[in-house]
Amino acid sequence: MKTLNLPPRLLMGPGPVNCYPRVLSAMSTQLVGQFDPAMTAVMDEVMALYRQVFLTNNPHTLLIDGTSRAGIEALLVSALEPGDKVLVPVFGRFGHLLTEICERAGARVYTINSPWGTVFEPEQIEKALIRIKPKVLAIVQGDTSTTMLQPLEHLGALCRQHDVLLYCDATASVGGNTLNTDEWQLDAVSVGLQKCLGGPSGSAPITVSERYVTQVRKRHHIEAGIRESSSSHALGSPIQSNYFDIPMLLDYWSGARLNHHTEAASMLFCARECAIALLEEGLGNVIRRHYDAGSAMLAGIQAMELTPYGDIKHKMNNAVGVVIPDKIDGELVRHELLHRFNIEIGTSFGPLKGKIWRIGTMGYNARQDAVLHTLQSLETVLRRHQCVPKAGGGVDAALAYYDQASIQ
Amino acid sequence: MKTLNLPPRLLMGPGPVNCYPRVLSAMSTQLVGQFDPAMTAVMDEVMALYRQVFLTNNPHTLLIDGTSRAGIEALLVSALEPGDKVLVPVFGRFGHLLTEICERAGARVYTINSPWGTVFEPEQIEKALIRIKPKVLAIVQGDTSTTMLQPLEHLGALCRQHDVLLYCDATASVGGNTLNTDEWQLDAVSVGLQKCLGGPSGSAPITVSERYVTQVRKRHHIEAGIRESSSSHALGSPIQSNYFDIPMLLDYWSGARLNHHTEAASMLFCARECAIALLEEGLGNVIRRHYDAGSAMLAGIQAMELTPYGDIKHKMNNAVGVVIPDKIDGELVRHELLHRFNIEIGTSFGPLKGKIWRIGTMGYNARQDAVLHTLQSLETVLRRHQCVPKAGGGVDAALAYYDQASIQ
Repeated sequence: MKTLNLPPRLLMGPGPVNCYPRVLSAMSTQLVGQFDPAMTAVMDEVMALYRQVFLTNNPHTLLIDGTSRAGIEALLVSALEPGDKVLVPVFGRFGHLLTEICERAGARVYTINSPWGTVFEPEQIEKALIRIKPKVLAIVQGDTSTTMLQPLEHLGALCRQHDVLLYCDATASVGGNTLNTDEWQLDAVSVGLQKCLGGPSGSAPITVSERYVTQVRKRHHIEAGIRESSSSHALGSPIQSNYFDIPMLLDYWSGARLNHHTEAASMLFCARECAIALLEEGLGNVIRRHYDAGSAMLAGIQAMELTPYGDIKHKMNNAVGVVIPDKIDGELVRHELLHRFNIEIGTSFGPLKGKIWRIGTMGYNARQDAVLHTLQSLETVLRRHQCVPKAGGGVDAALAYYDQASIQ
Repeated sequence: MKTLNLPPRLLMGPGPVNCYPRVLSAMSTQLVGQFDPAMTAVMDEVMALYRQVFLTNNPHTLLIDGTSRAGIEALLVSALEPGDKVLVPVFGRFGHLLTEICERAGARVYTINSPWGTVFEPEQIEKALIRIKPKVLAIVQGDTSTTMLQPLEHLGALCRQHDVLLYCDATASVGGNTLNTDEWQLDAVSVGLQKCLGGPSGSAPITVSERYVTQVRKRHHIEAGIRESSSSHALGSPIQSNYFDIPMLLDYWSGARLNHHTEAASMLFCARECAIALLEEGLGNVIRRHYDAGSAMLAGIQAMELTPYGDIKHKMNNAVGVVIPDKIDGELVRHELLHRFNIEIGTSFGPLKGKIWRIGTMGYNARQDAVLHTLQSLETVLRRHQCVPKAGGGVDAALAYYDQASIQ
């Protein structure tokens, strides 16, 4: 049995990406017990740190022990009782994921669709809210399948007006794009570490508003086996998952520390370090770094006379889709980039499969050198397929972007 | 924001325990992409390693990305359709957890109960199987709430005979006690890393038999958004969780690599190292080490004239319950052990709350020095409460056990 000896990839796809080295180191911290005051102090600290990441005062800000879709499922399955109506505006693959999770929760799911590569106008969503009167509006902020970023700033007020809970999956956008939980009146937000936060997949930070908590507390339940009296049985319809039961998780993360799962301590330390890395650099600075890396990458792609995918004025800072030129085998290009240059760029799903590459500039890799190496290498590979007009055009455009950005 | 600076605890409770240092180091490995051949090779390797841990030839052996109860929920919710009958023999807290998870899956749950501190005879379970005719028998192997280890070796044949699927939660027992998946004809087993496997909580290895897979494949489903044709819609009743959908997870871990969640790579590397640590030492040797540490601890406890809890001939190798002597405040003792000696022992749940301590000897801490330090420190603290008859009795008995064990 051999030591793990992985190739030194530069991960420039839609995530996961390379982790910040300090985040990797944090996971090697030896454990303390799950109810040790030293442990619960770290849990409290992580709650406080993620309030700053989410820009919220919600006391109910914590981690779900699983990947980002564990966070999505926890927030939706706890809020939706069978038969509840939910509206999902779908503009990419992760909108479909939300519908699927809501359907499995027994909800009546209504969708509106925007063509892949576009986003919704607030009016489209408002019309659907009025027509459907859902309990929950569930929407993705940044959908890496299309690289589009849905504007959210007007939806919170609409949802309050129509008495709807607003859930947002900001997994792919948080840290690289503005996400203003309280100002935008988002009731429930879940994210993951493996995109702009620069960690591995495996922990899903969430935050929920008092409005959300009031709804889910109606379904509050204390587990048999740790109940001390028989009088504290569930009042509302039980949440169909024990693992994703938000009221129980709130109890676990509260001062009461009512036992639920055994907290995934190494991922807790990891999530802590991701937040500290972000906050020490400064949220605004990190978003600006993502904006610069994404803009430089886009400039390089365009200078190579490649076509960016979709409505680029709504592109996420941290990802760009690139239309694969005719007569080129997109997978062959990805293969050469990976095996000759140790650089990974992304393929696509569903309707875009084989049609676009997806190039990410996120987290630790939202860096000038990572952008420049990627553009050079992509050009070299494309050149071997007689596809690029002018040698050095891509990397020069990116350099020019960074020159100009640093002057401002 | 400060560097994480946790006290150097010796974790001698019912888990989590201190991790093997090599396991902590493995988590600092930099990532590769989720479908990188270097990554999928590690996933395949982990499947092969856990076949050896579980003593099975099941090809379907993989990780659930969550804590051990995520593994439990995935296996039960995928197998149980609403209205299905399940039998849960309950002999401690984690039996209650199984009933709760099954209820939330919509199953009709039948329990039989054995007093806490005891286990079931096979005849008791067979009678209930015949009477209830469940689809699934769900049982815990080692329940840390009582420290009891349920014998399982006769249940598989019974279940085959009565056409029942046999699920076992071996979280607390695996690695420290015999668990023979194929020989015992277990259809589905889930575990965690944070007990005898010497890792942190956060990844749940599972294995499932062909019988189990045949059942859950009837509910097979491909997610919207990654479906390539509209013809491949779900056939059976959909599994109520997307995250815990075993057929989808089997697709993800198969050669098809059908996209589901983003694998929690650092926890994958961690789970890999836990298995390698176990297999390099040798499964039989590791179980023997747990037996010795548990026996030495028990000898020490008895020599201190403390009373072990429950039917100790069915005690797990890796944990012992200790009846808290009259007039002693059990929490005060735990507090002194933690804050003066940096040693954690466990408290209890539900009916045993305040009545027993639980002392674990598991994973990295199933070591002679850990046993000796714990006994000495417990004696010192108890002595401050005028509770121990003979100075040095506990530690001397443990030393004597190890002297005799090493002669054999």
